[in-house]
Amino acid sequence: MRLTELETPALVLDQAKMDRNIARMREHLARLGVAFRPHVKTPKAIDVVRRMISNPAGPITVSTLKEADYFFGHGISDILYAVGITPNKLDHVARLMGAGARLKIILDNEEAAHAVVAYGRDNGVKFEVLIEIDCDGHRSGVKPDAPELITIGRVLHEGGTTLTGVMTHAGSSYNCTSVEGIRAMAKQERSLAVHCAERLRAAGLPCPVVSIGSSPTATYAQDLSGVTEVRAGVFVFFDLVMAGIDVCKQDDIALSVLTTVIGHQRDRGWIITDAGWMAMSRDRGTAAQKVDQGYGVVCDVQGSPIKDLIMAQANQEHGVLAHRSGDPAQTPKLPVGTLLRILPNHACATGAQHDRYHVLESSGAEDIAAVWPRFSGW
Amino acid sequence: MRLTELETPALVLDQAKMDRNIARMREHLARLGVAFRPHVKTPKAIDVVRRMISNPAGPITVSTLKEADYFFGHGISDILYAVGITPNKLDHVARLMGAGARLKIILDNEEAAHAVVAYGRDNGVKFEVLIEIDCDGHRSGVKPDAPELITIGRVLHEGGTTLTGVMTHAGSSYNCTSVEGIRAMAKQERSLAVHCAERLRAAGLPCPVVSIGSSPTATYAQDLSGVTEVRAGVFVFFDLVMAGIDVCKQDDIALSVLTTVIGHQRDRGWIITDAGWMAMSRDRGTAAQKVDQGYGVVCDVQGSPIKDLIMAQANQEHGVLAHRSGDPAQTPKLPVGTLLRILPNHACATGAQHDRYHVLESSGAEDIAAVWPRFSGW
Repeated sequence: MRLTELETPALVLDQAKMDRNIARMREHLARLGVAFRPHVKTPKAIDVVRRMISNPAGPITVSTLKEADYFFGHGISDILYAVGITPNKLDHVARLMGAGARLKIILDNEEAAHAVVAYGRDNGVKFEVLIEIDCDGHRSGVKPDAPELITIGRVLHEGGTTLTGVMTHAGSSYNCTSVEGIRAMAKQERSLAVHCAERLRAAGLPCPVVSIGSSPTATYAQDLSGVTEVRAGVFVFFDLVMAGIDVCKQDDIALSVLTTVIGHQRDRGWIITDAGWMAMSRDRGTAAQKVDQGYGVVCDVQGSPIKDLIMAQANQEHGVLAHRSGDPAQTPKLPVGTLLRILPNHACATGAQHDRYHVLESSGAEDIAAVWPRFSGW
Repeated sequence: MRLTELETPALVLDQAKMDRNIARMREHLARLGVAFRPHVKTPKAIDVVRRMISNPAGPITVSTLKEADYFFGHGISDILYAVGITPNKLDHVARLMGAGARLKIILDNEEAAHAVVAYGRDNGVKFEVLIEIDCDGHRSGVKPDAPELITIGRVLHEGGTTLTGVMTHAGSSYNCTSVEGIRAMAKQERSLAVHCAERLRAAGLPCPVVSIGSSPTATYAQDLSGVTEVRAGVFVFFDLVMAGIDVCKQDDIALSVLTTVIGHQRDRGWIITDAGWMAMSRDRGTAAQKVDQGYGVVCDVQGSPIKDLIMAQANQEHGVLAHRSGDPAQTPKLPVGTLLRILPNHACATGAQHDRYHVLESSGAEDIAAVWPRFSGW
């Protein structure tokens, strides 16, 4: 099938760009001497993830137990579930472990540690647990100097779980405004994770794994001594948010949404399309950046950006394209039926609105080389 | 299964509230003497839509042809596809019509009208077409006094399609700030649609159907003379955006997302949960309203709001709950493992992130009475 024969909206993946993004990250991390545990929450598709990992068994990082189920079903056994565990998910974790998954869980507080220990003892399950560290005040995690780090470590170690190590995610790196800022955040992420590992070891507790990562810090890290593995996800496709903070170039973005022009409001300089927020997501991650890209950057059907044309507004199944300036006279003339491709703000969010990737071997290709299924939900 | 046994996050539907919302809208429109063509883009589930329609064959409104396929497969034949048609969808429309669907399409420009006429002539298909009217400058549609209205009508009528009528959607009603404003918008929506129907008839063209609607205007319309049918969708579940403009009460909201407390950042007054934007959507529709509800209003597991606790931030699979004031001391103490329910900003967007409804017969019910599948995508 040809790209121009697809019913719109449809998710399009440029495989050449994706492969280049993966190769660049793997080479960079290999040079730094750390293992790579890619985060598969972005693609949620085995055909993509097989290209992200060098060993068929993993390792990978997941954001849901549904991802763990799916990828374990496809032969990937070394899995880190990187969202703090809740007691009501331990049955599911234990089931996966019983089936042979080397599934690791994380937590950042004593209540959760006691719940995991109690479940493990009552059910004869030896959980592998990492303690989450808050390296940047972004979200979850134990403060790096908090006494709780050691307390939690002891509860886990003495309670019969495998204390696997520490993990952290410098989510604040998404809000950096310069490469220097990201480099500094990468240093901070590394040094605080290593610091926590050293605190645990000094207290006589095991800490073999030191896991860090985000696409920005992984891209710009220059020294990862003491770190054993790096996690990153969105780098596989990249997006406008990443381009907006110079983690990639706009030309590296491998994902786009194919859409068709429905009509016009010429007095306003609006082009109306059939890709609304349902196709793009409501993510407005570039709104706070130097350049606000609206709901996305508009490209022609070959994937080349149309100068200063952005998706300015979104309804459920309608997009409104307009010139960045708002000047109606500057909106290009695009007839009804014209096919366009929109680069997304946030690849994880846009991907999640679709159930398949229409794969192009390269950006200007006319044929759909493959259709790769993807999933969402829990 | 009990509500408290669900793995979180999970979508919860309060059937008693939904049934009440449906009954209220149907009674209101019956009193006004118009047919009801509910928009099924909100629920996307046959178990919900069966309760919205009084005749098993419809009518309904859809926002995608996938919805048309699915509901036609469930016996609903009278379907309006309420997004401007594009030439690359006519094969699909013709296929559905050939299978027996009474599928109506819309358009707002001569280019699309000529494409529909040409396709119909070349393939022997008699399309049923409504002309979309722009009643409020919100999005698509022919301006009510534009000469194009008659030109498009002639192209369609003389080109062998069935000119079914006019349709409009007062999407601006979502931005009204008072009930008076919504009432005025409802008047405007009605009068401009009727005006366009009269213009077509005066030009000797048929216009049997005058279709209008949005949940706000449908709720507050007081006179619908000249209108033949009303469309509305989000009213079935309602949401915080609708409550924020007094189209419903917060207590009418039938949809919520069940979530579990993962941990805390006590110095910031944050409660971390396992429902992030993937479970709620990125919709921030209350941000521009009088009361910004963040990503949602937090309720206890029985569905009663916890005073001034909102979902303040969202990452992919993490939610951050905080007191509305931002004062850490005012955040309630909720242990790890606590189950909560979050009311959504926008029911269409939140629903779309899930593949099933966990149905409670009423708000405080403990048992899941049913699980209703729903779908997304194209």
